[in-house]
Amino acid sequence: MFSLWRENKKFHCLAGWRDELYPIFGKDHKPLLVVERAGGGLLGIRHFGVHINGYVRDKDENGKPIIKMWIAKRALTKQTFPDMYDNVVAGGLPVGQTPIECAIRECMEEAYFPEEIAKKVVPVGAVTYTFYNFDGIKPENQYLYDLELSKDELPKINDGEVQSFNLWDFDKITEVLKNHEFCPTAGLIVIEFMIRHGIITPNNEKDYLDIISSFHNDIGFPGPAHC
Amino acid sequence: MFSLWRENKKFHCLAGWRDELYPIFGKDHKPLLVVERAGGGLLGIRHFGVHINGYVRDKDENGKPIIKMWIAKRALTKQTFPDMYDNVVAGGLPVGQTPIECAIRECMEEAYFPEEIAKKVVPVGAVTYTFYNFDGIKPENQYLYDLELSKDELPKINDGEVQSFNLWDFDKITEVLKNHEFCPTAGLIVIEFMIRHGIITPNNEKDYLDIISSFHNDIGFPGPAHC
Repeated sequence: MFSLWRENKKFHCLAGWRDELYPIFGKDHKPLLVVERAGGGLLGIRHFGVHINGYVRDKDENGKPIIKMWIAKRALTKQTFPDMYDNVVAGGLPVGQTPIECAIRECMEEAYFPEEIAKKVVPVGAVTYTFYNFDGIKPENQYLYDLELSKDELPKINDGEVQSFNLWDFDKITEVLKNHEFCPTAGLIVIEFMIRHGIITPNNEKDYLDIISSFHNDIGFPGPAHC
Repeated sequence: MFSLWRENKKFHCLAGWRDELYPIFGKDHKPLLVVERAGGGLLGIRHFGVHINGYVRDKDENGKPIIKMWIAKRALTKQTFPDMYDNVVAGGLPVGQTPIECAIRECMEEAYFPEEIAKKVVPVGAVTYTFYNFDGIKPENQYLYDLELSKDELPKINDGEVQSFNLWDFDKITEVLKNHEFCPTAGLIVIEFMIRHGIITPNNEKDYLDIISSFHNDIGFPGPAHC
């Protein structure tokens, strides 16, 4: 069906055919069927991905401990959200991979992190939200990993999906967030990181509780089990 | 009204009169009115509290880094959940206090942590869920703080609300969770901590995503602003 629609140019999203299969899960957490990733939004199926928060502990000019975060700028040639800022490593979760396998693979593909660095990722939760645009509706789950890097563990451009990596403090990141220069998912995930690391607090954000609830929606359809 | 019901012994919950006022918020995040804490569940109002995860970084017998957590055992005389396990410090948020003020005050009251220790708390998010029993319905928000303690920063019994403090690894904590020996809120908050610190992972918990969504319900009524 998607192949036919692709030939007929019926839906814009199918022009970005990925040759990557996304699963639809049954109640037993096992895949019932798989569909081409580019058309997932047309069916409103749950989408799963992995985002990695790469960060470095540093000190500001007064010697106070601060956190800086590696931010990628997406390539101009990306099918979705070209030229926008993103997490250092992120990727969709294809059928048959667990989130940690996907995280380690994407670390190499997107930031050229060898396995000994990639293996330091710590699972820290997930966000859930529903994204929609002219390409369809996507209830998305992103598995989140924090990756603390030393000052000489640098991401490198590898697969052409990224045009630059930037190590920024959260003043700069907040400015870029406010300018809507992050792709939507990464913007949300950076905010989640800022909440979890005490940068956004009940004392500096009046909508603290509502923001937290807003990226943990319950989707109501079954998802995968990875164990 | 609550005073009358208290005299008439109309509701069990009012026997535990606290002389503590809880606010009900309007759309502008400001209190519209205040009610006695013990009767809040009769009105189904949002309840707000603060929980502190006191933890210590240690190593296991093989030299692998592990986290241990301070767990309190509630006093036999507590009005709610006597003799059950709880976070090292926790308390309801009274009207007029911000979460961080409440956290620092409760650190002293419940665990005898002086301000220089208490000030190390880091805000790490919040959980939201709806609790109900024969005393009513309570949509609850708990502001969460992590408090990393050194091996010689020990909680001490201070105000009679706690009968003991225990520094446990997560094998022991998991056992106590499975035996339902935690009070419900603390049990949930310990699980949230385990997810955030990579102890519960997508690879060892098949309901990972559902568990995370389940403690971030959106309540739909206004809450406070603390800035």
